[in-house]
Amino acid sequence: MLSEFDLIARYFTRPLRPGSAATLGVGDDCALLAPAAGMQLAISTDMLVEGRHFFAGADPALLGHKCLAVNLSDLAAMGARPLAFTLALALPAADEAWLAPFAQGMFALADLHGCELVGGDTTRGPLTVSITVFGEVPKEQALRRSNARVGDDIWVSGTLGEARLALAALAGELALDAASLAAAAPCLHAPAPRVALGLALRGVASAAIDISDGLAGDLGHILKQSGVGAVVDIDGLPAGPTLALQPPALQRAYCIAGGDDYELCFTAAPERRADVLAAARASATPVSRIGVIEAAPGLRLVDAAGRPCQLPMTSFDHFASP
Amino acid sequence: MLSEFDLIARYFTRPLRPGSAATLGVGDDCALLAPAAGMQLAISTDMLVEGRHFFAGADPALLGHKCLAVNLSDLAAMGARPLAFTLALALPAADEAWLAPFAQGMFALADLHGCELVGGDTTRGPLTVSITVFGEVPKEQALRRSNARVGDDIWVSGTLGEARLALAALAGELALDAASLAAAAPCLHAPAPRVALGLALRGVASAAIDISDGLAGDLGHILKQSGVGAVVDIDGLPAGPTLALQPPALQRAYCIAGGDDYELCFTAAPERRADVLAAARASATPVSRIGVIEAAPGLRLVDAAGRPCQLPMTSFDHFASP
Repeated sequence: MLSEFDLIARYFTRPLRPGSAATLGVGDDCALLAPAAGMQLAISTDMLVEGRHFFAGADPALLGHKCLAVNLSDLAAMGARPLAFTLALALPAADEAWLAPFAQGMFALADLHGCELVGGDTTRGPLTVSITVFGEVPKEQALRRSNARVGDDIWVSGTLGEARLALAALAGELALDAASLAAAAPCLHAPAPRVALGLALRGVASAAIDISDGLAGDLGHILKQSGVGAVVDIDGLPAGPTLALQPPALQRAYCIAGGDDYELCFTAAPERRADVLAAARASATPVSRIGVIEAAPGLRLVDAAGRPCQLPMTSFDHFASP
Repeated sequence: MLSEFDLIARYFTRPLRPGSAATLGVGDDCALLAPAAGMQLAISTDMLVEGRHFFAGADPALLGHKCLAVNLSDLAAMGARPLAFTLALALPAADEAWLAPFAQGMFALADLHGCELVGGDTTRGPLTVSITVFGEVPKEQALRRSNARVGDDIWVSGTLGEARLALAALAGELALDAASLAAAAPCLHAPAPRVALGLALRGVASAAIDISDGLAGDLGHILKQSGVGAVVDIDGLPAGPTLALQPPALQRAYCIAGGDDYELCFTAAPERRADVLAAARASATPVSRIGVIEAAPGLRLVDAAGRPCQLPMTSFDHFASP
């Protein structure tokens, strides 16, 4: 049986890259990290629990990817460049057949974004992955939730609802043919954090958030913290390609309150439309304009004809009754 | 039932202090934090799991204290001043009778050290507390594990083995009268991280670590990373006051391989003895000189008469077979 220290040495210890923001990584009481001059650190934490955020028996390589991806998505929503992360991992057993692909999936995404593992903790326990991620962003350029202004356009990146569709099929909530499930599942299991778009939106977007609990709920955080409201064209939302083949009511529901999208929802002044589209092109990320910020509080949905539209828009709540 | 967002708002959201190193705390995609000029961030993560690191039904106020204390202890061992922390919390239910004292115990210790909660994540799941803590330390002054030199003295702060004695009594491994258990239990449940000593040892100690898994194992990390060995007088170890009333063999065993001590073990050149004692006085922290760094690898224990001494010195390993 692999010991705790062997486990860390074998799977989670790699030399720091030359030019790293970290001057000390895994293996001491603390890691040491300094942002570059004029930069501040953006810090976010997400914890994923087996049976809650992912199915028991989930593919470890995809899980390693996703646990880091959801954290990188928070950096993206802040316009921060990834630097480093720590990993706290509770495992039922030191199973190398699980650890090797988990580490591989996690490091493949980390390397793609130049994000180094600098510390962590491993323990025995119910499978739980808690990552804290560090990025850097120039002072005063972070994309906060609180800065949306009346008249701003509302945008989303990529497409919505595809992860929720895959989850529904896997949980037996609806029937989906194998080819459709195979097409939708990567959105659920291996989301691509919109880091490049977040960086390109510095100085362009007025506010941003990543969509993890559903568009309505997450846009709601921007509205509340900015003290504004919004109108959104529900039929203009970019449904994912598999979801777009489903009945219109399901498309609407999963676009507005799906969850696990890991797209960016952001606002920008209308005179910045060309800059938003340039940022999208520069980061090779599609964006859609979905609504407008208004003074009256609350989120109002309208259909293609501009008629008000009622939809359940409950955001995902981990402590809600099932 | 409290929602996830109400829970965060009610128990884990407080305004940032004026002059805080953080410019943005709980409530956005990321917190924003910058160390002062010339400083680097020291970062550490510890995850505590119910049934593994603490008993089911543990007092929530003490648990809140301890989860932060073990992280602050890592900052202390680096000579870093606490700035901020993030909290990822998996809970079986949003139970306010548990949350209120947990938050109270955690914030009481946080306030004592000027350490602010700047972000986190809450989810439903088996009770698990994962904290990442941030401190600052001047560049080149961090107390690493790798810098012990042949001839250095070896020191420990406070006393050893008291937490292990309390754990043994609570786990039914040995009988302890109620008064003795009451005296020893605070060392297990509410350790005081040696932050002030760690700060005072900047520029004085050559290497440092905090003792969480037992003296032999943790000193062993210093020896291995510094490429040296050590001789330690096992009868000169500072047994805790309750442990000191137990049989000598138990005293030795729990001092050398107890665990949960959260004292500092550090090395310093012999010509710095007066400086070490001054640091101890300045931080109101007792210290004991327990041995000497030698060139030959490995840890050698000797008794009061200088005779070699064999003791099981296995460090705690979360993945060892029970």
